[in-house]
Parts: sequence; C-alpha cells; structure tokens
Amino acid sequence: MTETININLGKRSYPIYVGEHLLTNGDLFEKHISNKKVAIVTNETISPLYLQKISKTFKDINKEIIPIILPDGEAFKNFETLNLIYDELLKNRANRQISLVALGGGVVGDITGFAAATFMRGVDFIQIPTTLLSQVDSSVGGKTGINHQLGKNMIGAFYQPKCVIADISLLATLPDNHLSAGLAEVIKYGLIRDFSFFEWLEKNINGIMKRDSKLLINAVICSCKNKADIVESDEFESNIRAILNLGHTFGHAIETATGYGKWLHGEAIGIGMVMAAHLSEQMGWLKKEEYQRIKSLIVSSNLPINPPEISKKDFLDLMQLDKKTKDDQINLVLQQGIGKAILTSDYDEEKLHNTLLKKSF
Amino acid sequence: MTETININLGKRSYPIYVGEHLLTNGDLFEKHISNKKVAIVTNETISPLYLQKISKTFKDINKEIIPIILPDGEAFKNFETLNLIYDELLKNRANRQISLVALGGGVVGDITGFAAATFMRGVDFIQIPTTLLSQVDSSVGGKTGINHQLGKNMIGAFYQPKCVIADISLLATLPDNHLSAGLAEVIKYGLIRDFSFFEWLEKNINGIMKRDSKLLINAVICSCKNKADIVESDEFESNIRAILNLGHTFGHAIETATGYGKWLHGEAIGIGMVMAAHLSEQMGWLKKEEYQRIKSLIVSSNLPINPPEISKKDFLDLMQLDKKTKDDQINLVLQQGIGKAILTSDYDEEKLHNTLLKKSF
Repeated sequence: MTETININLGKRSYPIYVGEHLLTNGDLFEKHISNKKVAIVTNETISPLYLQKISKTFKDINKEIIPIILPDGEAFKNFETLNLIYDELLKNRANRQISLVALGGGVVGDITGFAAATFMRGVDFIQIPTTLLSQVDSSVGGKTGINHQLGKNMIGAFYQPKCVIADISLLATLPDNHLSAGLAEVIKYGLIRDFSFFEWLEKNINGIMKRDSKLLINAVICSCKNKADIVESDEFESNIRAILNLGHTFGHAIETATGYGKWLHGEAIGIGMVMAAHLSEQMGWLKKEEYQRIKSLIVSSNLPINPPEISKKDFLDLMQLDKKTKDDQINLVLQQGIGKAILTSDYDEEKLHNTLLKKSF
Repeated sequence: MTETININLGKRSYPIYVGEHLLTNGDLFEKHISNKKVAIVTNETISPLYLQKISKTFKDINKEIIPIILPDGEAFKNFETLNLIYDELLKNRANRQISLVALGGGVVGDITGFAAATFMRGVDFIQIPTTLLSQVDSSVGGKTGINHQLGKNMIGAFYQPKCVIADISLLATLPDNHLSAGLAEVIKYGLIRDFSFFEWLEKNINGIMKRDSKLLINAVICSCKNKADIVESDEFESNIRAILNLGHTFGHAIETATGYGKWLHGEAIGIGMVMAAHLSEQMGWLKKEEYQRIKSLIVSSNLPINPPEISKKDFLDLMQLDKKTKDDQINLVLQQGIGKAILTSDYDEEKLHNTLLKKSF
C-alpha cells in the first residue's frame, strides 16, 4: 500500500509517496517525468545498492539515463561536487528538457535540488530519499543548497521537486547510526507541535529501532504531514517555519566546529535539541520531568546527548553566524512544554552560557 | 523628470526608474531598501567613477555599507567571482537581512542577482545598471547567472530585484563601443515587435550616438516597456519570451568560440541579428530592402556586422549547445518582416549553412 501526502504550494504543489518497493514502480515515475533524458544523481555508497535497479525501471519506461555518481558525505556538499553535476550534464548535452533524479540522503537531495534550481535557470527534479532523515526532512520544503567554508547551507535556493518517492524498503540497508540520526528529526516534530506523536514515539521506539515497516511508514507520514502543515503556511521561512530549526543553531555550530562530516547531521541536531530543552528548562518553560522525557527518548534512539569540546566563545561565534540570527542577536527555537516551540531571543544570556558550558546532560 | 515603469509579476512586481542624476536620490533608495546593511557590488572600472558618490547617498540615509569590488569583464562572470561575493558577505557577518546593490553593467548585474538569489536562499537586491545594454536588457526579466566553461549563462536563476534605477547620467562615462553594444539590444526590440520604434531609431540614430539625454531616455523606456510586455506574459520563458533571443544563438556561439570577453555581448548579438536577418531573407520571410534597412541601422550604430573566423562545424556545435535548442534541433528566432519575430526550427538547413559560411554581410 502506498500513501500519498499532497504538499499544497499553489503552482509548486507536489505529492510525496510513502510505501514499500516503490523503486520498481515505473508508472509512478512515468507520471512525473515528462522528459526523455533523466540524470540520476547518487553517491558511491548508494549506487552499488540501487542504481541498477532504478536504471532498469527507467529503461522499461523508455528513458535515456545519465548516471552521475558523487562522493559520499557532508564534507562533499560543496561547489566542487555541484560542479561535477553541471559538467556531466553539459558533457552529455543536457538542455532544459532534462529531469534530475536525486537518489540518496540529504546531501544528494540538497545538492541535486540546487543543481536543478540553477542549471539553465531551472529544470525538473524528483527526489528519492534513501535515508530516514531525508525522507522526513528534505522531502518537504524545497530547501536546496551547499555549504560554504564559513558556514553550513549558506548557498542555496528554495526549489520544489515534481514529486518525492519515500520508499521505506530502502531503509533496510541504512546503517544503525543513520537510522538514529533520522529519528532525531522525527522526534523534533513531536517536540515542536505534536504531543500525541511524541507519546506514540515513546511507546513505539523499540519497534522502530527494529525497523518494523508499518511503524516506520507511520513515523515518516506523521513527520511529513507535520512539516507540510508548517511549510504550506510559510514557504519562504518568513516566520513560523523557523520552528523547524529546533536544535539546529546549536547543531550547526557543532557541525561547523568539528568539520562537516564528523558528526551526522541528525546526531548534531539530537544534541542541539537536548541543549535547547536544557535552556528551556532553566527558563522555567519546560518542566524537569518533560526535559527528562525528551532526553530519554533521544537516548532510546541511540543518539548521543553530549556535545564535543567546544569553547563557549567559539560556540557563540558559530551560533551568531548561523543564518537564523536577526540583527546580531541570536534567535533560538526553544520549548514551551512538549509539543510547543517558539522562536525567541528573549531568554537569559547567562542561562544560555550555562547550557554551552555544560559537558554532560 | 523621472519616469517609472512598473513590471507586473504578482508578488514579484517592481518598478524601474528612468531619469537623470538618480544616484544622489536618497529617497528613492530608502523607499526600496528596508535593511540596515547594504553590500554594494561593483567592478574595478565603475568603482573609481561612482562608488564614492553612491556611498555618500547611502550614508546620508543611515545605511551600513559593505563595498565589494569585482574584476571587470565577461571573462570573470564565473564561480570564482561569485564566490568573492559570498566570502565578503560572510566575512562581514551578513545574514538574510542584507540588501545587495548591483552597480555596474550586465556582468555585475547578473552575478550579483545570482548571489542575491542564492545567498542564504535569497536576499533582497536592487540594480543600478551603468551601461546602456544593462539598462535596456538586464533591468527587466530577472535572469541572473554565471557562465560555465562549456557554455554561457548555463548556471543561474530567475530572481527579481526590488527595483531598478536606470540613471541615464551614468552613460556619460560609457565608452563608445559599449554605447554601440547597448544599441544592438535596443534595435532588437524594434526588430522583434515594434516597427514604429524601429522607424524612430532610424530617424534618431545620429542624435542617440551623440548621447542626447532625451533621446536616450526614450530609447531606454521604449526598450524596457517592450521587454516588460513580453516578460509579464511569460516570466519563466516557456514560450513567447524566447523571441527576446533574436541573434543570441548565433551571438553566443561567437562569444564562446572566441573566448568570453573578446567581443562585447552587444557586438556579438548585433552580428547575430544580421545573420538571423540574412537567413530570414533567404527563406523569403524578409524582403531584400528590409534586410538592408536592418543592416544599415546596425552599421549606423557603429556595430560590426561580420562574424570572426569560425568553421561551420564549430558554429553548429556551439549553437546546438546553446540552451535555446529543444530535442537536439536548433531552434532559431527569425524575422517575418521588421517588427515580427518567430521561434522556429522550420527553416532550410542548407540556407542556415549558407549564412554560417558567409564571411561578409
């Protein structure tokens, strides 16, 4: 059974399909790819697993395929890798009548989406996220981009895909730490706006960790629906969409300080959410027991909760650089109970310092 | 007197102001720049002439300025130069609340617009075109981008400015060959859709060459209005907008074959328009006398009409690479009389070869 979630963004609306064994579903692809030429952008880890399978599906529906295989990892989410895509497209005489297919995790999705947004000022693309994190996060919202030496995701565009195909079967080959990293973003939806989803996760975390298909499908659907609600009301992140960044200002600082790729994005975000909860608890916005429940669910997901060694000054500098800051004051997404988050700069500076100095949560 | 042309693109609408001495008009800038930080992106040629003047205007309205000075010329319209802008913005801790001001010709405008489209997924920008070509061409339409070794304008985005300030006074310092290059695009509007403008140009070309302000203002306004009509009905170049590329498929091939920067864009387009007229005349779509009138107006603008030495094969290869091709067939914008252009692949292949082999028009 395949579930469909429609993302309603006017002319830029598109469906997300969530189900099993979708990679061999030629009809689904045919419906959303009108062009003859298709560039499949993937990475060195995913291509031995799924490139042949998807290529067969495309050949069966008469598509001409250009495979583009990128190096794997956040460390390669940069201009050089982006340029690999442009080079291959141009060498293969691609024009505006090409569709790009992103087959991979968040890095492949973000960079392919940005290539699609900017190649000849915009061509079609579809996303096939192969990690839990990308299925629940980058499938919705149209954020594409690359990193810059001086900051993560500094270069990018808002650009929507023609469709997203979230095939749960692909999660079978996902390493354990990547499953956990994905769960960080899943938990986030519970924390920022969906208390009953948070409770469902508490109840089912063990089954999810065992990769029960039905539970995973439900987790992906609930996450995408929550994100869709937010993105539909604020496509270009003018206001409410910012709460999706819970844990991200802390997390990005951790990723930048340690060098991209050392920590999985989801791991850094997991720690960031614990830090945000800690600050919220200090502010009296979150009860001690709520803080404990949050930590406990993150621990049950096999995620780290303690940040690496970063000085307070470096932490603050990196957080200030993060694009969520406004007029040089650090805006943070913080909790007001479980299931409600706010974007605020109205917290006690010293309590933030306490959180940044804490070694063990 | 300042004239205002409104470009109507829904939420992305913006005004173009055409007049004299606009660089010192603080009110105009204040109206369209709500952010405190302003990055003025310009080049080595323009900065000694106008950077101080505009900086004073901005300081008077309490803006904090980050000047960014790029190397001058089409040869620098590449990723390295784009990255200079990102670097400076990040070094100066710019966030989403920054406005980019493009002060320069088409290259500065295109690259700054693309930086604005992609820095933190989009920030405000305004354009102050300093050449006739950029005043009549890049002011309308939101095309931004950079070149790739394998083709011109291959990387880019559609991104609209908050306003365009076309200050005719800036044309006083424009070298003669750049004035002529700009006229190529002005003449284009007459050729593709405005016969009476073509006739007005024939009558006034001498006064325009002498830089009569009133004539220049009228030429800029008529050009922008013509372009606005087209862009408003087809913002993302799905169909009718393509006629704006009259002469461009030939012209881009010339620019790529000779290396960017050897020929001014307008010079290459001027030759391209003569070649398009020649093919149209061969097809019987343009009378001999019309072809002569076109050539004659281009010659009166002091533009070259003969292409450099390029083999037929190279010409065809480069034209095929140009993004105006669909399904590997070269689509060309051709004339049907003066004042009407069509996009077609329905011409005689051999007659195209005749045009490509002709050394002297």
